[in-house]
Amino acid sequence: MVGGSERIERLIQELAKMPTIGRRTAQRIALYLLKTPEEEVRSLVDAIVEMKDKVGYCSECGAISESETCSVCTDPRRHRSVICVVEEPGNVMGIERTGEYRGLYHVLHGRLSPLDGIGPEDLSIDRLARRIEDLGIDEVIIATNPTVEGETTCNYIAGVVKSLGVRVTAIARGVPMGSDLDFADELTLARAIQGRGDIK
Amino acid sequence: MVGGSERIERLIQELAKMPTIGRRTAQRIALYLLKTPEEEVRSLVDAIVEMKDKVGYCSECGAISESETCSVCTDPRRHRSVICVVEEPGNVMGIERTGEYRGLYHVLHGRLSPLDGIGPEDLSIDRLARRIEDLGIDEVIIATNPTVEGETTCNYIAGVVKSLGVRVTAIARGVPMGSDLDFADELTLARAIQGRGDIK
Repeated sequence: MVGGSERIERLIQELAKMPTIGRRTAQRIALYLLKTPEEEVRSLVDAIVEMKDKVGYCSECGAISESETCSVCTDPRRHRSVICVVEEPGNVMGIERTGEYRGLYHVLHGRLSPLDGIGPEDLSIDRLARRIEDLGIDEVIIATNPTVEGETTCNYIAGVVKSLGVRVTAIARGVPMGSDLDFADELTLARAIQGRGDIK
Repeated sequence: MVGGSERIERLIQELAKMPTIGRRTAQRIALYLLKTPEEEVRSLVDAIVEMKDKVGYCSECGAISESETCSVCTDPRRHRSVICVVEEPGNVMGIERTGEYRGLYHVLHGRLSPLDGIGPEDLSIDRLARRIEDLGIDEVIIATNPTVEGETTCNYIAGVVKSLGVRVTAIARGVPMGSDLDFADELTLARAIQGRGDIK
């Protein structure tokens, strides 16, 4: 390992396993950590260890939680008749930041993907059906990603929810705010036209 | 911290301090670490802690080293009459990967930047002068970055080396290999023309 070190190399390899981090970025981060004061690196390491030790998923909805049941599921002020279905825990954080939604969540922890061998039994869809019945839900809002797999997952879940006789909706797909129509792809623009709403 | 957790938030903030990592990437990495098996996260943490514990900089040249003096400085097969001056330890790793250079290094750990209050006394330029004399160097190759600050640093060091009566060279600036001339900026193209070489 001329010019470097085996340990730096090992760290670069570990860092490069993380999403969005390529080898070049991993090297940059490793060298940054090498020159960063001990206490600051300690603080990062502690944050990782403590998160891993104390944070998990809500046993009810699957969102991030530091206790058995998350702060949404235990909050008596949340509307307990609406469930929003998302693919990943991060999506809950995103929707919460909007402040637009006051109902409950259901996190699938994935999406239907036949090519990767991920079927309905690998997602928590049975549990979703049970929650819908137990809680007496009257609307399920599906907020899966606007991708092929997300749409497939959306359609599958919509079928399950409809068979329970419950209203099912999907978040709007359309042109993102602050963008320029000229830069919207055809599919997005087509969905925006299909999903047009009356101007009140 | 509705929908998330204080500990996830703290980790996101720690991760976002690292170079190239914005808040969005930091969140993605934090959620990736949350769902990654314990052993794998342990392996990352161990790599950070061990690197921090065992890796440092060579007391001679300033390159990365797991011992007092690095593997380049102690290698009897390296040409001890040439020194290549670089800004950061990562640059040594890059040059070593080319296999083109067999001399010694000198790492500045920075660059002249009057706006940030970084002057010659903050870089290891005095030590470079001492090494040039002690080792009886007969060529100093300057490989600072092709930026305004890098060029300023290069010019300053060139002055110091010349005053010692030693030959000083700079790595070529020009169009990068595998690129298209149409995409080269004017400054790069101008330097490529100025630095043209005879075809042998």
